[in-house]
Amino acid sequence: MPRPELLETFANPHPGRPYEIYLECPEFTSLCPVGGIETDATELELLKGGAPDFGTIRITYIPDAQCIELKSLKLYLWSFRNDGIFYERAVNRILDDLVARAAPRWMEVVGDFNVRGGIKSIVTARHGTRP
Amino acid sequence: MPRPELLETFANPHPGRPYEIYLECPEFTSLCPVGGIETDATELELLKGGAPDFGTIRITYIPDAQCIELKSLKLYLWSFRNDGIFYERAVNRILDDLVARAAPRWMEVVGDFNVRGGIKSIVTARHGTRP
Amino acid sequence: MPRPELLETFANPHPGRPYEIYLECPEFTSLCPVGGIETDATELELLKGGAPDFGTIRITYIPDAQCIELKSLKLYLWSFRNDGIFYERAVNRILDDLVARAAPRWMEVVGDFNVRGGIKSIVTARHGTRP
Amino acid sequence: MPRPELLETFANPHPGRPYEIYLECPEFTSLCPVGGIETDATELELLKGGAPDFGTIRITYIPDAQCIELKSLKLYLWSFRNDGIFYERAVNRILDDLVARAAPRWMEVVGDFNVRGGIKSIVTARHGTRP
Amino acid sequence: MPRPELLETFANPHPGRPYEIYLECPEFTSLCPVGGIETDATELELLKGGAPDFGTIRITYIPDAQCIELKSLKLYLWSFRNDGIFYERAVNRILDDLVARAAPRWMEVVGDFNVRGGIKSIVTARHGTRP
Amino acid sequence: MPRPELLETFANPHPGRPYEIYLECPEFTSLCPVGGIETDATELELLKGGAPDFGTIRITYIPDAQCIELKSLKLYLWSFRNDGIFYERAVNRILDDLVARAAPRWMEVVGDFNVRGGIKSIVTARHGTRP
Amino acid sequence: MPRPELLETFANPHPGRPYEIYLECPEFTSLCPVGGIETDATELELLKGGAPDFGTIRITYIPDAQCIELKSLKLYLWSFRNDGIFYERAVNRILDDLVARAAPRWMEVVGDFNVRGGIKSIVTARHGTRP
Amino acid sequence: MPRPELLETFANPHPGRPYEIYLECPEFTSLCPVGGIETDATELELLKGGAPDFGTIRITYIPDAQCIELKSLKLYLWSFRNDGIFYERAVNRILDDLVARAAPRWMEVVGDFNVRGGIKSIVTARHGTRP
Amino acid sequence: MPRPELLETFANPHPGRPYEIYLECPEFTSLCPVGGIETDATELELLKGGAPDFGTIRITYIPDAQCIELKSLKLYLWSFRNDGIFYERAVNRILDDLVARAAPRWMEVVGDFNVRGGIKSIVTARHGTRP
Amino acid sequence: MPRPELLETFANPHPGRPYEIYLECPEFTSLCPVGGIETDATELELLKGGAPDFGTIRITYIPDAQCIELKSLKLYLWSFRNDGIFYERAVNRILDDLVARAAPRWMEVVGDFNVRGGIKSIVTARHGTRP
Repeated sequence: MPRPELLETFANPHPGRPYEIYLECPEFTSLCPVGGIETDATELELLKGGAPDFGTIRITYIPDAQCIELKSLKLYLWSFRNDGIFYERAVNRILDDLVARAAPRWMEVVGDFNVRGGIKSIVTARHGTRP
Repeated sequence: MPRPELLETFANPHPGRPYEIYLECPEFTSLCPVGGIETDATELELLKGGAPDFGTIRITYIPDAQCIELKSLKLYLWSFRNDGIFYERAVNRILDDLVARAAPRWMEVVGDFNVRGGIKSIVTARHGTRP
Repeated sequence: MPRPELLETFANPHPGRPYEIYLECPEFTSLCPVGGIETDATELELLKGGAPDFGTIRITYIPDAQCIELKSLKLYLWSFRNDGIFYERAVNRILDDLVARAAPRWMEVVGDFNVRGGIKSIVTARHGTRP
Repeated sequence: MPRPELLETFANPHPGRPYEIYLECPEFTSLCPVGGIETDATELELLKGGAPDFGTIRITYIPDAQCIELKSLKLYLWSFRNDGIFYERAVNRILDDLVARAAPRWMEVVGDFNVRGGIKSIVTARHGTRP
Repeated sequence: MPRPELLETFANPHPGRPYEIYLECPEFTSLCPVGGIETDATELELLKGGAPDFGTIRITYIPDAQCIELKSLKLYLWSFRNDGIFYERAVNRILDDLVARAAPRWMEVVGDFNVRGGIKSIVTARHGTRP
Repeated sequence: MPRPELLETFANPHPGRPYEIYLECPEFTSLCPVGGIETDATELELLKGGAPDFGTIRITYIPDAQCIELKSLKLYLWSFRNDGIFYERAVNRILDDLVARAAPRWMEVVGDFNVRGGIKSIVTARHGTRP
Repeated sequence: MPRPELLETFANPHPGRPYEIYLECPEFTSLCPVGGIETDATELELLKGGAPDFGTIRITYIPDAQCIELKSLKLYLWSFRNDGIFYERAVNRILDDLVARAAPRWMEVVGDFNVRGGIKSIVTARHGTRP
Repeated sequence: MPRPELLETFANPHPGRPYEIYLECPEFTSLCPVGGIETDATELELLKGGAPDFGTIRITYIPDAQCIELKSLKLYLWSFRNDGIFYERAVNRILDDLVARAAPRWMEVVGDFNVRGGIKSIVTARHGTRP
Repeated sequence: MPRPELLETFANPHPGRPYEIYLECPEFTSLCPVGGIETDATELELLKGGAPDFGTIRITYIPDAQCIELKSLKLYLWSFRNDGIFYERAVNRILDDLVARAAPRWMEVVGDFNVRGGIKSIVTARHGTRP
Repeated sequence: MPRPELLETFANPHPGRPYEIYLECPEFTSLCPVGGIETDATELELLKGGAPDFGTIRITYIPDAQCIELKSLKLYLWSFRNDGIFYERAVNRILDDLVARAAPRWMEVVGDFNVRGGIKSIVTARHGTRP
């Protein structure tokens, strides 16, 4: 289950300048929802039907008062590892969690997922307007 | 023969946010129309003249109330496998069928087809205006 | 000598929608004009001075009532094979011939030619305004 | 169903020299056997379970008296299009059929198949000893 | 915990010919052993210290009587997902399990793991002698 | 410790034309702050905890009266070698130092840092408005 | 028609040392034989059926007393421009002509031809034994 | 010393259409100014200190009445070969010389220079406004 | 100064099988010897003359009783960071230190260093004979 | 004129181990011999006919008592800058000069020259037998 409480921030060292931070996390993995139902999967369920999904999460944002601490972001993304979740929901969920914590001036989250059934998916969600 | 009735959708989990979904299907195949006439080809006709075409279909859209279900999209695209159809018609047909089912806020369909007779073709059609 | 009379078209299957067609022809070859004079070259003249040129022709257009038939386009481009012609003239000539036949809403022709004398050339000409 | 009777050969123009011919066919497609049983699939069965497989066939051989005619090779490979067959059997079958027709001094057939279920497969079979 | 009992095989369709099969599994993931001790990690332990490892497993083999069934291989590799194990042990373990099940004439297993602490690791183990 | 006093400039040879200069420095290295505190690290501290960071610095600017001298830029960037500093601060610091010395019409500094803990970071800061 | 009389050589500047020369000619073009008959094609015939072929010729050799003069090699290869010839014959012909002129210690000629009918062909012929 | 008098032009074959010409010259070489002073270097001076610089010159322009003749452009760029000159001055000088000769509607000159002292430089100058 | 005492090993989990381990460390940095004398450089000396060198160290080995522990290898390679040392000596030194600690059956160390003065260097040293 | 007297060596730091050194010099330039005669060219002659040649020199060797000093190698290669010389002679000359100075156990020199007249050339010469 995603754990947004793991996310930490630190004070933006240059709050007066609207600069941009890009973070690329190529080792994201979650589970495909079993029977179309999004839920936590035990290892047994995993082997019965919920296949692992793999992808890259790309986050771009313009910080306001807070910057996202990288190690906490890594732990937060690991918390999807045994979670059954659709691509569309995962990307919107990550955006919501990061916005709630870091309150950026602008943010974009891209989930670039590996081919499944011969189809590659990329989901892109944005918060605010890019200056 | 393309079977739009195979397409299924599911409720958009974040209908309030205009986010973007990109789907890439690199294993599209159909048949070149025999004698310039678009028709279903039996295997015999295939060997007599209608050569297979191969390409990648790229779909980008902003969902409104519905998202396209990936497995049904795969089955829908398979239904072109033994169909004799021109590139231009195939791309516009896919766009029409997807728009009819999913009613997106905006959609683009790109057909990127392999070289035939030394010429590569890419056909791009759009529905609505990108916000 | 370029033979625009070889070009054929077919009725646009979706005339109501301004979609885009891209055609890439990577096997274009013509001759460098002998002594700076553009002319047809016999094989003998070829060996005396007019060196072969090679390049890729890229055509992008938005069809109106007519689409360009691919096989006829291939034959038309082959008709430059033994023709001595400057890059600038070839690209503008192809654009003029295609516009005269297919009357597109908008068209761009790019000639991307191989290195000659250590210099690579790309010539781009457009007809109409891209919507 | 594979049709080896479509394969044709022509007389090797340099039978005295053991030269090598490599043929790469990037547009091979067949069907995954339905229910693990290798069989011809009707279009209906295709939609029920037998998913399309895609791959590249690479053939290298040293001709003896006969060379493989390219157009007939293309038609022969097309004849797998609606056939349900395992990768291992397809590659060994192609090798057997080509050896039966062209009796090369040496031949290698490689089937390089697209990812299925997150696993990519390459099968390589050889006839005779490379000189 | 790795589950070799998930591995299945099928009868080699061409047992008389020593042909080669290559399988590439780019979505392998396991856990780094917590505190240097190889053990199963609960999700809590995962967050406390055992970081996920990612890599590609490449298997090449010459089958004897049995071929490895792909879907069962996928399930077997998934069973490392929540297992704390060193790279060196994982690769040798996979080789041992596959050899025990399929008894190939020759087999090579390569584990190509992502950068950790600025160092990329590739471990290669072989069974038997390549003919 | 960064030494902006090492930076030198020379008179812009074409001050009347607003042309653009791009400088790419692929061998930037600094230290990760020890214990989250930005400070100079002795070699001993380095081995105890402050890990080296590596990245590429990309600078684009439109000079006004002065251009940045390349050798002095190299020395200035070397002065971060044993400095413990966060990515966000390093990029903003370089921008501030270069603007103070060269007073460009416009400047952008990009720090493209290698993967750490499975996450790649790119930080982009700008001074002025691009004409 | 290929003109081997155009080939010229110059005295090997280091005849005592068996060094290697590799020549890559990426702009080879000839015609596909019309109706399967190898013949010279007039421009008219070209448009009726004999399609242009394109490829790269790669020559590697160890010179003995003579080296191949590059400009004459270029003219010789141009002489295939309007010639209808099979791939297998072209490569063996080039090898025969070069060996007859330059009498190398060893030579290999590779013809790497563009895709035709979805199949790419590479033909390799050798003279002598590589030391 | 750069010799703009070598530059020649020819009459634009399509003066009525504002098409674009791109020229890429990947073999530009000049000398680094000795002791920071821009001057012609004898071979002796070259060996004492003025190191060779290498780069690619990219020219894009929209011709008005005249097009730049390629062979003369090649000779003009060769005339920088033994000239000691700064990157910034070289690019602006080439732009000035080309504009003086060919009077284009718009022109851009890019000098993309190889790494020196671990830093890569790209200088871009423009004349006029792109339509 | 290189600190081989930082290197640690762990017991080979499969000592009976001669498998291979490849380690790639793309973030190696040391200093160029000041005045041609190999010595430790203070930061001041660094700025006066000893320029930083960058490269990738590639280690391949077949373990005997001991495997190299990755974190300790990272610390060991960091200990060259402020050391003035020639490429040839660095590679041989790393090989000597690793052999002394881990006593492998066979080992190869490659130092692949970035361009300096327009020349790229790769140094390769081996211990023992590859089985 | 090539100046072998510029080449310097230093004592091999590990003379007991037959390790390998690879040097890649991507910025080699010389002149094409004017009128087929190899000679020094004045700048005027350069502009009249002797065109510049560009290429990469790759040197691999196993040192005996001496290693080649990199800065002196750079100066030596610069001394070909205004020299009219054939590819075959240049590569053999460099090999002869380096062997005379450094007396390696084994050496290979490769000259990889840019396309001229549509033909790319690579010349490879070796001294001694690779152990």
